[in-house]
Amino acid sequence: MKIRLAQINPTIGDLQGNSALIEQTIADAENDTIDLLIFPELAVCGYIPLDLLERPAFLDDIYQTNEELVDHSRDTAVLFGTVTPNESETGRSCFNSAILARDGKVQAEVHKALLPTYDVYNELRYFEPDNTFECVEFEGHQLGITVCEDIWHNFELPYITYDINPTKELINGGAEAIFNLSASPYTRNKPAKRKQMLCQRAREFNVPVFYVNQVGSNTELISDGDSMVIDHTEDVIARAPLFEETAVDVHWNPKEDVIEQTEPPAEGAKPIEQMFGALQLGLRDYLEKTQITDKVVVGLSGGIDSALVAVIAVEALGAENVVGITMPSKFSSEGSVTDSQELAQNLGISCHEIVIKDIYKEFTQLLHPFFEDTEFGTAEENIQPRIRGTLLMAYSNKFRHMLLNTGNKSELAIGYCTLYGDMSGGLSMIGDLYKSEVYEMARWLNNVYFDDNIIPPQILRKPPSAELRPDQADTDSLPEYDTLDAILKAYIEEQVSIDVIADRGYDPDLIKRIISLVDNMEYKRFQGVPILKVSDKAFGSGRNMPVVQQWSHNFRD
Amino acid sequence: MKIRLAQINPTIGDLQGNSALIEQTIADAENDTIDLLIFPELAVCGYIPLDLLERPAFLDDIYQTNEELVDHSRDTAVLFGTVTPNESETGRSCFNSAILARDGKVQAEVHKALLPTYDVYNELRYFEPDNTFECVEFEGHQLGITVCEDIWHNFELPYITYDINPTKELINGGAEAIFNLSASPYTRNKPAKRKQMLCQRAREFNVPVFYVNQVGSNTELISDGDSMVIDHTEDVIARAPLFEETAVDVHWNPKEDVIEQTEPPAEGAKPIEQMFGALQLGLRDYLEKTQITDKVVVGLSGGIDSALVAVIAVEALGAENVVGITMPSKFSSEGSVTDSQELAQNLGISCHEIVIKDIYKEFTQLLHPFFEDTEFGTAEENIQPRIRGTLLMAYSNKFRHMLLNTGNKSELAIGYCTLYGDMSGGLSMIGDLYKSEVYEMARWLNNVYFDDNIIPPQILRKPPSAELRPDQADTDSLPEYDTLDAILKAYIEEQVSIDVIADRGYDPDLIKRIISLVDNMEYKRFQGVPILKVSDKAFGSGRNMPVVQQWSHNFRD
Repeated sequence: MKIRLAQINPTIGDLQGNSALIEQTIADAENDTIDLLIFPELAVCGYIPLDLLERPAFLDDIYQTNEELVDHSRDTAVLFGTVTPNESETGRSCFNSAILARDGKVQAEVHKALLPTYDVYNELRYFEPDNTFECVEFEGHQLGITVCEDIWHNFELPYITYDINPTKELINGGAEAIFNLSASPYTRNKPAKRKQMLCQRAREFNVPVFYVNQVGSNTELISDGDSMVIDHTEDVIARAPLFEETAVDVHWNPKEDVIEQTEPPAEGAKPIEQMFGALQLGLRDYLEKTQITDKVVVGLSGGIDSALVAVIAVEALGAENVVGITMPSKFSSEGSVTDSQELAQNLGISCHEIVIKDIYKEFTQLLHPFFEDTEFGTAEENIQPRIRGTLLMAYSNKFRHMLLNTGNKSELAIGYCTLYGDMSGGLSMIGDLYKSEVYEMARWLNNVYFDDNIIPPQILRKPPSAELRPDQADTDSLPEYDTLDAILKAYIEEQVSIDVIADRGYDPDLIKRIISLVDNMEYKRFQGVPILKVSDKAFGSGRNMPVVQQWSHNFRD
Repeated sequence: MKIRLAQINPTIGDLQGNSALIEQTIADAENDTIDLLIFPELAVCGYIPLDLLERPAFLDDIYQTNEELVDHSRDTAVLFGTVTPNESETGRSCFNSAILARDGKVQAEVHKALLPTYDVYNELRYFEPDNTFECVEFEGHQLGITVCEDIWHNFELPYITYDINPTKELINGGAEAIFNLSASPYTRNKPAKRKQMLCQRAREFNVPVFYVNQVGSNTELISDGDSMVIDHTEDVIARAPLFEETAVDVHWNPKEDVIEQTEPPAEGAKPIEQMFGALQLGLRDYLEKTQITDKVVVGLSGGIDSALVAVIAVEALGAENVVGITMPSKFSSEGSVTDSQELAQNLGISCHEIVIKDIYKEFTQLLHPFFEDTEFGTAEENIQPRIRGTLLMAYSNKFRHMLLNTGNKSELAIGYCTLYGDMSGGLSMIGDLYKSEVYEMARWLNNVYFDDNIIPPQILRKPPSAELRPDQADTDSLPEYDTLDAILKAYIEEQVSIDVIADRGYDPDLIKRIISLVDNMEYKRFQGVPILKVSDKAFGSGRNMPVVQQWSHNFRD
């Protein structure tokens, strides 16, 4: 049995584009005499259309597309993820389903049972869960078909313990192999964790596992692909590269339980390299799928964050599509301009300079009647990034370059950033990387990826500073980033208590101060830029914290 | 049986403050020899703590508070809404529950069955649904206790049809009355709809209904109170005023099925008056519950939107806590300043003037090297609101006045607003009011509420304009607001198709253009200010649309 895993990149809501892509892939598979062609979860509408799924007209469009795709099937059986209607009089309108089609007919329909409702997932908002588990017969064999979460059953999942195990139900029903259609977003830990989980399933149930994942980015979520086939002895027979549209072919002989690969499995990259790939795909897809522009503009401060963002942008889009602008104020160090220029030269991008000294002075003069008896403070500091934001957005508006946001996760966590200033932009490139990860990636770029100091070494060496007042350093008001990041990660990602963090050797008062900052700054993040998610818990739609809340108040005093 | 409905205003996460409020209310009820004292849904932790509910330490704090409250109960039985642990090995960690306590002991626990997952609700993300329905015996009578959504079973609910009817199950189990603990947010239609639903339940099951709702605002959601008692003949025996912390007492004689009121039910206000009350409460509670400041600043443009926001702010906070700033540019009409000053005088607030002509010129000079061969366009227009945003935020930062956002729903829908410019602020006061509702409320204020032109009549008369280029009017690029609002409401709130809207007499090309604008502007709203919700579908956390999506693309050409 020739099986092809089609690791495709659908766009949310683009039913015409996605079905054209699926049809072309079907035609290629027919040519290659593939027996079974498998597409990912929600291949027809992209993952996930969110509240578009509440619109009857949108659902009708999907159902019509399903019919056209089924009509299109010939000798090659096609298994594809899509939305199907719930014909029952109760429950939600639709299922998250897999349709098996051949010879222009629906052979089987399977609906997702486990609908995740944590982090970025709110699938019970849209889909009716299924609780029937029947194998699908195909060429005399029993296939166990699952959709994404179904196969993850209680494998290190947060906050919920499912009482149904779809894979086990299907095995009990006689499944000779498990198939899984996914739209699983990348996180730094995901490829390793995913492989571990799939191998465990193969071992546990002594069957091969065929896993097909979407690739491609939709706003915050970057599906990484990583489709793979694992045999019943836990051998990874085939594995698709991450972040690429591709197809993986295997020959499965169910009688002898042998799977042959046609190509060796892709070699796994290191986490930092994967993350670099994820961010590039995230940026490229955002621009391609919104069709707003090919070009981006980055404010270059001379610091490590904007330098890293510029490098990612150039690798993703090409130097000709990236413009840097450096905007020194009276508090900027000399390196702010010269280091930015050196970086731009290394990258082959233009670097414009706009000096904001005079316009800052103009603002302070306009405000003088109100501010005259006050001391220099946050108000004055924030004027500077807001002038820069205004200039960058003017450039962006005029030349249709999307402004890239350059803030990191550590800053965003504690609110060490200015609303409408450096918090501006169309997409946040590194808003899910802690400052220590920013350094890690920058060093890896200089030492390994480029084997050359693409980022000028002095940018890596200089102490982090917002440069908004004389001789400012981040450590004036913050601990060293290693300490800060460890506390932030424990609180935000592990969600553990103060006591647990203190047991790791951090000062309880410092922990409380940092946690209070995180909680108090929710109002800033509410208005934040969409962030490319690369961690298990990113700021954005997967972390829903109330803006108005007083829990932390209990330990604030 | 003396029953008291305690319409209280808890703060999310403030377990100490909320339990102090509950304990004081219990003490008062003991003094008044109340038999049964009823608090709203999630009275202990506020509605809704969102992802705080994923933190074990937060749940433990709630459980401890529950125990303290139970310990506190004496002769008066206390029924209160809170979170309780799910002791089962599967499912989510906790239930959304009601605890009945008396004499320091738990008499009964009831868990919510219907967990809404539409609009602002994602309760299946947090709570395990219950599917057992047992009446609670109290003084020889069978009480049917429900939590919020349980009693709404399929009464005009969007997107889901429940297959379980908790009220009916309880009636079948012998319930002599239905009790409902709610945290139900206000919308323009809600008070009428709520009463209709409760009366229908009383009629359908021939029992009295005791309904206790939270009052108070938490970020976007304004619970309106409106607690009421309806007897089995559908008579509204008692009804609490909206937007006030209060208590309602009734005597219920279950044997004779007679309920006596102690006070006449509150008189219902008109929808526009209710909405005005809701917005005031929303602002007051935001400031009180975040404890950031008592004062606000409003940019006054001379237009109707900022005028309305200033009036609401003055009514909510007092004139001494509101500051207006008018910032004319070279494109501003004369009335921009003089009308703002007249409004400020009427309201008794100060109105500062900052002329932005020169600083705008400075920006264009700074950008001249890049812009010199281009025509005046959006880039130049947007610089002006961004200068204003920077000045307002500087004032806000310096004097700790929260900036109020003054954008309306019509503008926000079609993106007729500038990110980091007029989209700035801590809270959006009228972002859920269509432009036509802004006029409706302004007229009602002038003609009825104040019976005097508190808003200068010329502000109501002048054609709407952003005043960002010479002789600009909103109708240059947009239809009249009545037409625009009708199309927007059909698309955003009713979620109906283009055909349905066209059948109402609107030009299909205009509909398509407007819908495309709405969909294309999702990226702006992603970064929007929290909006006080007063409609069935507000922009904000109850409307989750993908930023990157191409569905509308199908009809864009």
